[in-house]
Amino acid sequence: MPAVPYQELKPPQRVLLGPGPSNVHPRVQQAMAAPLLGHLDPYFLTVMDDIMSLLRYLFQTSNQLTFPISATGSAGMEAGLCNFLEPGDVALIGVNGYFGERLVTVAQRCGAEVIRLDAEWGHIVEAEAIEDAFKKQRKVKLLALVHAETSTGVLQPLIEASRLARQHGALLLVDAVTSLGGHELAIDDWGIDICYSGSQKCISCPPGLSPITVNQKAMDTLKKRTSPIASFYLDLSLLAKYWIAEGGRVYHHTAPACLFYAFHEALALIAEEGLKARIQRHARYGAALQAGLEAMGLTLHAQPGHRLNTLTTVRIPDGVDDARIRQRLLSDYSIEIGGGLGTLKGKVWRIGLMGYSSSEQNVLLVLSALEKLLAEEGYRTKTGAGVGAAVRSLRS
Amino acid sequence: MPAVPYQELKPPQRVLLGPGPSNVHPRVQQAMAAPLLGHLDPYFLTVMDDIMSLLRYLFQTSNQLTFPISATGSAGMEAGLCNFLEPGDVALIGVNGYFGERLVTVAQRCGAEVIRLDAEWGHIVEAEAIEDAFKKQRKVKLLALVHAETSTGVLQPLIEASRLARQHGALLLVDAVTSLGGHELAIDDWGIDICYSGSQKCISCPPGLSPITVNQKAMDTLKKRTSPIASFYLDLSLLAKYWIAEGGRVYHHTAPACLFYAFHEALALIAEEGLKARIQRHARYGAALQAGLEAMGLTLHAQPGHRLNTLTTVRIPDGVDDARIRQRLLSDYSIEIGGGLGTLKGKVWRIGLMGYSSSEQNVLLVLSALEKLLAEEGYRTKTGAGVGAAVRSLRS
Repeated sequence: MPAVPYQELKPPQRVLLGPGPSNVHPRVQQAMAAPLLGHLDPYFLTVMDDIMSLLRYLFQTSNQLTFPISATGSAGMEAGLCNFLEPGDVALIGVNGYFGERLVTVAQRCGAEVIRLDAEWGHIVEAEAIEDAFKKQRKVKLLALVHAETSTGVLQPLIEASRLARQHGALLLVDAVTSLGGHELAIDDWGIDICYSGSQKCISCPPGLSPITVNQKAMDTLKKRTSPIASFYLDLSLLAKYWIAEGGRVYHHTAPACLFYAFHEALALIAEEGLKARIQRHARYGAALQAGLEAMGLTLHAQPGHRLNTLTTVRIPDGVDDARIRQRLLSDYSIEIGGGLGTLKGKVWRIGLMGYSSSEQNVLLVLSALEKLLAEEGYRTKTGAGVGAAVRSLRS
Repeated sequence: MPAVPYQELKPPQRVLLGPGPSNVHPRVQQAMAAPLLGHLDPYFLTVMDDIMSLLRYLFQTSNQLTFPISATGSAGMEAGLCNFLEPGDVALIGVNGYFGERLVTVAQRCGAEVIRLDAEWGHIVEAEAIEDAFKKQRKVKLLALVHAETSTGVLQPLIEASRLARQHGALLLVDAVTSLGGHELAIDDWGIDICYSGSQKCISCPPGLSPITVNQKAMDTLKKRTSPIASFYLDLSLLAKYWIAEGGRVYHHTAPACLFYAFHEALALIAEEGLKARIQRHARYGAALQAGLEAMGLTLHAQPGHRLNTLTTVRIPDGVDDARIRQRLLSDYSIEIGGGLGTLKGKVWRIGLMGYSSSEQNVLLVLSALEKLLAEEGYRTKTGAGVGAAVRSLRS
C-alpha cells in the first residue's frame, strides 16, 4: 500500500488538433525511451552536434548560435528578450494577439521602454505602422514581431519589417513558435537577428524545448551590455560556451537528455521529408481545412491573405456552446481543438494542423466530427459540404 | 537522401554512477513514451494533481505551492532566488562548493547584496559562522544553504541554521538537488521556507524538471515585493495560478507532458517503496561504497560525519590519470562516474548512488572495476579488498 494515493498512469490516445502540442511520430515517441545518458557522455555530445546542424537547416541559417533552450517556448521568448534588452532600452513590439501581449510583458520585466504597435486581433501589423513608429522614435534597440500568432491564426509578413529594422539600426526578433517547420521562414535571407520557436508545434517533438537562433550582430549587441543579464539559466553567452565545442564545453546545466533524443528524431524526420515538401504539406492541408470550414458556412477569423496554414481560427456560430462542442470532440472522437485565448475567448476555435498532425486523415476527420456535433447543436449545413470542399481542394 | 547529415540515434546503455542523471526504472522509461496529451486535457490535469500530492509526500510538507518547474535544477535555483530577492536585499549564502558559488552568482543577478559564508570545499558551513554573520549584519532577507553539495559530497546540517534564520527574520532557502529522495529532509518540521531539487538525481526521473516547494511565509514576502520579478517563466505567482486549481487554472506555458509522465511514475515508485525505506537504502549502499573505497586505501574527500550517502567524493591517488580512468570505466564497463568540479577538478572523483542507481550490484560493480583499472595504472591494493569491505558493511 503506497504512502500517498495516486492513479495508474494511462493517458488516452488523442488526435491533437489544438494550438499545440501536435501528435508525435512513433519514432519520436520511441526515441524518448532510449537509454538515458549523462550530459557529458561522448555519445551525448554527438547528439548535441547533430541537433545544431539539423536545426540550422530548419531555421535556414548559418548562425553558430543555434540550439534548443532547455525549457518551453515561453522561456525561448524570455531568452530572446532578456539577453538583448537592458533597462531603459526602447523596444518596438507588434501586438495583434495574445503572444504579442506576452512579448510586451516580458520586455517590460527586462526594464525596457515598450512602444506598442497595436493591430486588431486577427489582422497583421502593417509595414506602414512599423515605419511610422521608427520615424517617431529616436532610438529603437529591438523590433519584435510574432510570425505566426497562435491566438489569432495570422501570419505576419517579415521582409519589409526586416528592411525597416536594418535601416533604423534595430535588431529584429521574431517569434516563430507556430511557424517554424510549417511555414516558409529563412533566417539569413530575411535578415532576422533573433528567432525562437517551440518543440511541440510544427516540429512535432513533445513540449519542453525552445529552439533559438541568434546572429553575430545580435551577439555583438549582447557583448556590449553594461548591466548583467538577470537570468543565469537563459544567459546566451553561458549557453554558447556549453553548446559550442570550440575550446571545450563549459558545464551550464544538466541537459534534458530524453527530450534531446526526441528532438533529434523529430528534426531527422524533417530532414528526411525535406523542408520544402513539409511546408507544402502544411499549405495543402491548411487550405483544405479552411475550404471545408467555409463550405460549412463558418467564418474564418484571420484576415484573408494572411492566414496560417498551421493553425486556423474559425468563429463559433451564434447559439453554439463553445465548451460543449470541444468537450464532445474530446469525449466522442478523442480530438483536441483549442478554444479562444484572451479577447477571443468564447469567440473562436483554434484548429491546428501542425507537423505530424497535418494530414489528410485529420482534415477529413475534424470536418466530419465538427459537422455532426454542430448539427446536434442546431447549426445546420448541407451534409458533407465541409468534407466535399476539402476533397476538392486537395484534388486541385 | 536527407538534406543534412546526421547519425541514427543509438545511445549506449550506461550504468550512471556520476553526479546525475541516475539511471531510471524501466517503468519511468516506458512512461515517457505514453500518448502525448495537450496541457489542458482533463486527464492531464489529474496527472498534475497527482504530481503535487506525491511531491508533498516527498518533501514532507503541506505547502500548497509544491510542483515542478518546467526546466532543470538550475532554473529551480533561479526561481528560488529571483522571486524573493529584490535589488538591494541582503542574502547570506553558504559557499562550500560549486553550487554555493552558483547561488552567489544567481543572487547577484537578482540585484541582491551577497554576504558570503565561505567554508573549505569538503567541509560544512558551521552554525557558529551563520550566527556570527547574522549578528554582524543588520537586515538579512534570505539565508541560502546547499543541503547536499554535489561538487564536494558534503551534507549540510540544517536544523540549527533554520532556528537562526527564524530568529533573525530571514527566509531559509535550501538547495536539495542531490538529497531529495535520498537523504532525510523534512520541509515543514525543519522550518525550511523555500526548497528546490532536480528530477534526475535521487528521484531517478530524466533531467528537465525542478521540483520546488514554498511555504506561506515566503509567498507573503513575494506578495510584498515593490519591484517586478525579472523572469516571467519563473514567476511563482503566475505558476501558482497555473498549478493550483482553485478558481480555475490560468495558462502560463505548455507543460512538458512526457517529462510529467516520467516524473509521475518516478514519484509513484517512491511512494511504493516508502520514503523511509528509500532513505535507508541510500544510507546502506552509500556506506558500503565508502567502506570499500577506504579499504582500497583511497581517501574520502568530505569531512567525516558529514558525508552524503547519495554522492561520494574520493581523492584521486597520486600518479593516477584522472581522465584515463574515467574514460576506461566508460569504454570497458559502460560506467559513468564524475570528475571534480571547480577547485576540485582533477583532484577527486564523484561516485553517485542515487535513486534507481543505488543498488548492491552497482556498489560491487564500481568497486571491482575501479580496483582493476587502478591496478593497471600501477596503484596496488589487496585484491578484492574493496569488494570485501563493502560486503562486510552490507552484512552488518
